Amino acid sequence: MKQFEKIKQEAYYANMQLPKLGLVLFTFGNVSVADRELNVFAIKPSGIPYDELSPEKMVIVDFNGEIIAGNLRPSSDTNTHAVLYKEWEQINSIVHTHSTYATAWAQSQRAIPIFGTTHADHLTIDIPCAAPMNDEMIEGNYEYQTGFQIMQHFQEMGLSYQEVEMVLVGNHAPFTWGKTPSKAVYNAAVLEELARMAYLTEQINSNAPRLKESLIKKHFERKHGPAAYYGQ
Amino acid sequence: MKQFEKIKQEAYYANMQLPKLGLVLFTFGNVSVADRELNVFAIKPSGIPYDELSPEKMVIVDFNGEIIAGNLRPSSDTNTHAVLYKEWEQINSIVHTHSTYATAWAQSQRAIPIFGTTHADHLTIDIPCAAPMNDEMIEGNYEYQTGFQIMQHFQEMGLSYQEVEMVLVGNHAPFTWGKTPSKAVYNAAVLEELARMAYLTEQINSNAPRLKESLIKKHFERKHGPAAYYGQ
Amino acid sequence: MKQFEKIKQEAYYANMQLPKLGLVLFTFGNVSVADRELNVFAIKPSGIPYDELSPEKMVIVDFNGEIIAGNLRPSSDTNTHAVLYKEWEQINSIVHTHSTYATAWAQSQRAIPIFGTTHADHLTIDIPCAAPMNDEMIEGNYEYQTGFQIMQHFQEMGLSYQEVEMVLVGNHAPFTWGKTPSKAVYNAAVLEELARMAYLTEQINSNAPRLKESLIKKHFERKHGPAAYYGQ
Amino acid sequence: MKQFEKIKQEAYYANMQLPKLGLVLFTFGNVSVADRELNVFAIKPSGIPYDELSPEKMVIVDFNGEIIAGNLRPSSDTNTHAVLYKEWEQINSIVHTHSTYATAWAQSQRAIPIFGTTHADHLTIDIPCAAPMNDEMIEGNYEYQTGFQIMQHFQEMGLSYQEVEMVLVGNHAPFTWGKTPSKAVYNAAVLEELARMAYLTEQINSNAPRLKESLIKKHFERKHGPAAYYGQ
Repeated sequence: MKQFEKIKQEAYYANMQLPKLGLVLFTFGNVSVADRELNVFAIKPSGIPYDELSPEKMVIVDFNGEIIAGNLRPSSDTNTHAVLYKEWEQINSIVHTHSTYATAWAQSQRAIPIFGTTHADHLTIDIPCAAPMNDEMIEGNYEYQTGFQIMQHFQEMGLSYQEVEMVLVGNHAPFTWGKTPSKAVYNAAVLEELARMAYLTEQINSNAPRLKESLIKKHFERKHGPAAYYGQ
Repeated sequence: MKQFEKIKQEAYYANMQLPKLGLVLFTFGNVSVADRELNVFAIKPSGIPYDELSPEKMVIVDFNGEIIAGNLRPSSDTNTHAVLYKEWEQINSIVHTHSTYATAWAQSQRAIPIFGTTHADHLTIDIPCAAPMNDEMIEGNYEYQTGFQIMQHFQEMGLSYQEVEMVLVGNHAPFTWGKTPSKAVYNAAVLEELARMAYLTEQINSNAPRLKESLIKKHFERKHGPAAYYGQ
Repeated sequence: MKQFEKIKQEAYYANMQLPKLGLVLFTFGNVSVADRELNVFAIKPSGIPYDELSPEKMVIVDFNGEIIAGNLRPSSDTNTHAVLYKEWEQINSIVHTHSTYATAWAQSQRAIPIFGTTHADHLTIDIPCAAPMNDEMIEGNYEYQTGFQIMQHFQEMGLSYQEVEMVLVGNHAPFTWGKTPSKAVYNAAVLEELARMAYLTEQINSNAPRLKESLIKKHFERKHGPAAYYGQ
Repeated sequence: MKQFEKIKQEAYYANMQLPKLGLVLFTFGNVSVADRELNVFAIKPSGIPYDELSPEKMVIVDFNGEIIAGNLRPSSDTNTHAVLYKEWEQINSIVHTHSTYATAWAQSQRAIPIFGTTHADHLTIDIPCAAPMNDEMIEGNYEYQTGFQIMQHFQEMGLSYQEVEMVLVGNHAPFTWGKTPSKAVYNAAVLEELARMAYLTEQINSNAPRLKESLIKKHFERKHGPAAYYGQ
């Protein structure tokens, strides 16, 4: 299975970042990494503590959720990853956590308002929060439907998954993604910090206004626009 | 006393997890581990700092609270552990902490509402909060009555101690339990995180709705139902 | 100066506990230790970072605030320590910090309500908060008057400094004390945790009731009464 | 480039303090150090993780924002540093972070009220919060205008940058400065703690009064007045 070695290594490394960044308690999270040529992804096995993980334990799954290689059962959230990879062809890694502040916003069923430039450095809109699924979806293939619910919310809100790389699933918790595993993990940590700052902002000023458009545009473009001048 | 070696080792190891998980300040907590064949349990000695503990210092007590072996006085909460072991025959370990967020809910005399799937992954109802005891119970055998108060609350609410492995004692603090010491300690850490998330959820949305039944059922069953597919 | 060796060692060790317990930022705190036979105390030098401290750097001061030995200027709060030692003859160590939650209560000019048994394990009343001093006191010998303000508040409230080993000074921050340095430092950490729990309790239930008398009495007495059974 | 060695070393060391003090997530912050004889400053390169920094990677820039030496692109906030150095001739180091509590106050567009002596030990007024810039300024040279906005706010409020070494930029985040890099970094950490204490103070008592003038004066002067007696 030498062909899967690279994504297993990457998925292992990315999963190990989650406890280091304080984003998971016990096994409450998982990262996957896709290989777009082989049409598979490597994902954390279900319920295995982080300090018992190794690259060999990663499970290889295709974009229909079928196990291709590996001796362990993959994350229970595997089908959500599969459907997102299948439909969103430009992403190569997905992160799911139950990080404290982001999950509290998800439980509150509220999008996270864009209150400052820290937020605008990463996206130009409120962090979207998909509604909880209807009962039919829940009783069906639940994890598959979770992915569908996310994509439907993006469609309804007219969002691009390439510009907005994070979402809250109402009553559940956050998902983030990116072109690389390190970007997807980065997004998970940034989301948690934005969730914490927005919570504090509303506590300090219950009438805090959203950031104005000119500042949103400026900050996003200096990092991401055609004339970006952040980074090397 | 070789017969008690195993539970002393296990109780020592489980007690040492509490400071590592950030659940205790100084000596504000204790874990016990039962041997169901010998009808005894090993418990932390009272008031000894965690970094001075060793397996030899654990105290062996029977289910009536009588000391069977050990040179130190057992935890002042020993009778609460004893009565729970006596009546709830399927549990083999009990944890008591004064962890910050769970204790704040206990002091607020409120059950912790089920707001999300992190909660539903572990239990299907609000985390119960037993009322403070009446004065007669307090002035009697206080620690014994604490255990009785917990069991009475479970009876009145129609709860199963095998399904709901955690409780808040009003004005006091949490108790958790399980079939194994690692599960009982796990429950103590999960309870603290659920308490923190629920606190934040209400701060972010004072009208946050409880999780709907279909989602509660789905999440609990994927971890605990007959067709569970979480873990290995 | 061999006669001061013991209290210098003890004061050094006790000061070094403050950053370990998360109670100080930079140099925002100090501990002193008294020698009741020599009528002096050892105290942290002013403005020296904790990682540059050593037993030799501790300053020896008498109960009138006069420097007896040492090459460095003592803590700017030295006179507060001096006057408390002079008047309260049963205490042998004093701790002053600006720990976050206790200081927030002091800034709020509120006593910390007794909401639970964690509190009652240590004292039977709300943690007292002395009012800010009047302008005459402030413009006089400020640090001496701070000690006087604390003692006056205890007198007016009918409190015993041997039973209540902690106080908030309104708009300023906490002081704690004890028969030993380790007890005084312990009290500083317990106060910070009680302050944090009480803050969360009011956030979760703005009508949370104070602990009832029977529970206060029971918990305090099991740790401190004539028939105490906590500890060894 | 031996002439720049000293400020590159100092800037490297000061930048490395930010993650140690918990003031930055990823690359969300930067420190610069000026050489007043050479009229240049050393600043963190843009977007480089802290654990990949070295003194050699610091970029040398003049007070007009022109790069003088270095192979990497300087921090995107470089022009804000440049304009402050140009106009405020007594400062030798500037720190910019997005530390959580200070940023939450900036997002709330509120000055941080002076609630206690911890605050008065460092400055005698509320921590100023400059309004967000108007659209023309934002669309112009944004980072230059950020510095201008800070200076204009100081002018309008009649503040001295030598007495008040910190500011919030509305909707954005804090800037601090000082005569030395260690003082500028110290100010960044103190600001974050004052922001956290003030937040908690208002949560505990929504009518908490500002500190009275006599106490403000006393505490500031014991640390900074002509008869200061804090420190060595």
